Amino acid sequence: MSQESQHDYSEGDLRKTGMALKHERTWDYELDRIVEAVEERGAEKVGLQFPEGLKRRAPHVADDLRALLPDDTRVLISGQPCYGACDLDTYMMRRTDVFVHFGHSPMKESDKIIYVPLFSNVEVEPIMEESLEELSDPDEDPDVGLVTTAQHMNKFDEMKAWLTERGYEVHTRRGDDRLTHEGQVLGCNYASADIDADQVLYVGGGKFHPLGLAMEHPEKNVVIADPVNNVVTIADTEKFLKQRYGAVHRAMDAETWGVVFCTKIGQGRWEVANDIVEENENAYLLTMDEVTPDRLTQFGFDAYVNTGCPRITTDDGPQFKQPMLTPGEYQIAIGEEPLDSLSFDTFHGTW
Amino acid sequence: MSQESQHDYSEGDLRKTGMALKHERTWDYELDRIVEAVEERGAEKVGLQFPEGLKRRAPHVADDLRALLPDDTRVLISGQPCYGACDLDTYMMRRTDVFVHFGHSPMKESDKIIYVPLFSNVEVEPIMEESLEELSDPDEDPDVGLVTTAQHMNKFDEMKAWLTERGYEVHTRRGDDRLTHEGQVLGCNYASADIDADQVLYVGGGKFHPLGLAMEHPEKNVVIADPVNNVVTIADTEKFLKQRYGAVHRAMDAETWGVVFCTKIGQGRWEVANDIVEENENAYLLTMDEVTPDRLTQFGFDAYVNTGCPRITTDDGPQFKQPMLTPGEYQIAIGEEPLDSLSFDTFHGTW
Repeated sequence: MSQESQHDYSEGDLRKTGMALKHERTWDYELDRIVEAVEERGAEKVGLQFPEGLKRRAPHVADDLRALLPDDTRVLISGQPCYGACDLDTYMMRRTDVFVHFGHSPMKESDKIIYVPLFSNVEVEPIMEESLEELSDPDEDPDVGLVTTAQHMNKFDEMKAWLTERGYEVHTRRGDDRLTHEGQVLGCNYASADIDADQVLYVGGGKFHPLGLAMEHPEKNVVIADPVNNVVTIADTEKFLKQRYGAVHRAMDAETWGVVFCTKIGQGRWEVANDIVEENENAYLLTMDEVTPDRLTQFGFDAYVNTGCPRITTDDGPQFKQPMLTPGEYQIAIGEEPLDSLSFDTFHGTW
Repeated sequence: MSQESQHDYSEGDLRKTGMALKHERTWDYELDRIVEAVEERGAEKVGLQFPEGLKRRAPHVADDLRALLPDDTRVLISGQPCYGACDLDTYMMRRTDVFVHFGHSPMKESDKIIYVPLFSNVEVEPIMEESLEELSDPDEDPDVGLVTTAQHMNKFDEMKAWLTERGYEVHTRRGDDRLTHEGQVLGCNYASADIDADQVLYVGGGKFHPLGLAMEHPEKNVVIADPVNNVVTIADTEKFLKQRYGAVHRAMDAETWGVVFCTKIGQGRWEVANDIVEENENAYLLTMDEVTPDRLTQFGFDAYVNTGCPRITTDDGPQFKQPMLTPGEYQIAIGEEPLDSLSFDTFHGTW
């Protein structure tokens, strides 16, 4: 890549990635680990997979890597969408000698995969200082849960110590097998927040994780300290709940159902999908990797149940022409469960 | 499925499928063959894959099939896009006991797959009668090539006899391994028209195949007899060529190239993709199944080469923000081949 076009991929330039950040971010791509694995295995093909927000960096990383590797090593970049460690490019994994998955922590350890987590270099203490205004005074209620995302996991001990120094009793846990680290949450799993405290501090970027966290733990005060956009907020689930109840009500008249079984390695829930079609003769089993409006609509069903990623159902749901429900919401729509049983759809287990 | 919603899937109703037909079409889904295979193999899971235009029929076919199968046989419908026999749902194929691919003829015989070709019941003689006006008089030039698509293959002998009776010498051949039948063309392969005649009669629907046919055989008069839309036309490649030269010229300034290797079972051309990145240090290898504007644009390359399905490149090309070229067009854009070498990109071999 020429000097000029390299400039297009300079660090911190996220103008065209849909991510507008107040802090610049630099990443450690851990190229040495990759080069070492290539040498050890005498690899001919190296596969690189990046999440959506980092795909623009892929050519730059490939450049840096090619400069370190023998000329005849072929570097492949995955063009498949990628939204998590549940979403490995299995085609590439099986057909390359070294397969590198960037930006997510391991959902399951595997010798075939090099996970490069890409920890953030953003400081967390300034925004934690601000978050104290939304947390109860430690003299009144010292118990606080602490969670974060894979990107900020490198600062987790620092966060914990910082709160402890200020008189809090910090509750943390490693949720379940789906999570790599103590205190880690995923878009589909908030088991690390199942702690004995009425308040939880989430340190991390975006609104994606806190919304699920607040839905999964509606009884807790969820304080969001976002060190990337430099803002503290309280999670609000009202708009989200309205949208979900709207979808459930629209689906109540459905005669035919398309039931999606997702074929992505970490998103399959066969039992859940199979149980639905076994019990409902007007339900049809659909298999696919990406769940998009176009793929569903052409089948002409009245409503859909998505047993794959719950974030597609809840976050992308409004883009679908027909109502798309989580398995739990489906049970409400067909009258098997009461309306007030509506809850966030979480994912457990690994692939 | 209820009586009422069955009505939505009545035969010949293509209003919402993007296909507007003057003739109704009925299909033989060959359910007996499928039931027989299920019984023979004691199958627990049956997978059904339909091309895009027929996905709306899938629930109806699943209904009919479930009525014939034991209650505990699970019928799965593929939600993956499907554009040809090159495009098998390999995930479904590997995880079902009986895998049925509808609407295309076999690209390669396999015990694992039941191909149901879905032959059209449309009469071809009326439109062939009309096509005589565009063919030379047999007294002047009796030589005519004859080609059709998989859907009308059941009428091929009838077409041949009809032309012979009218004094033509009909030239036919089976192009190569990619094609199942003598006289068959695919969207990416027109080798069956490599015959010793200055005119070719194409009997079949749509503009998809004839355009490729005319591009691949620019020296021949390509007469299109469309029995589905009841119209005879002459293939015109001018607009198409302008579009392709436009893309090539826009790509001439490109500094960086994304080179797509398609992971679909019948669309991989590894050597072609590999040769490009081996010779151009500003070219990067991207792997993906569906080739869409969103998937490519986020990498930020100046131009793309698609070594997968040529019809994505040529027919969908204008939807892509950056120029996307066929491998042959790429050679022109980088100055390795002269402008007038531009030709249609065809696919050979099987999967």
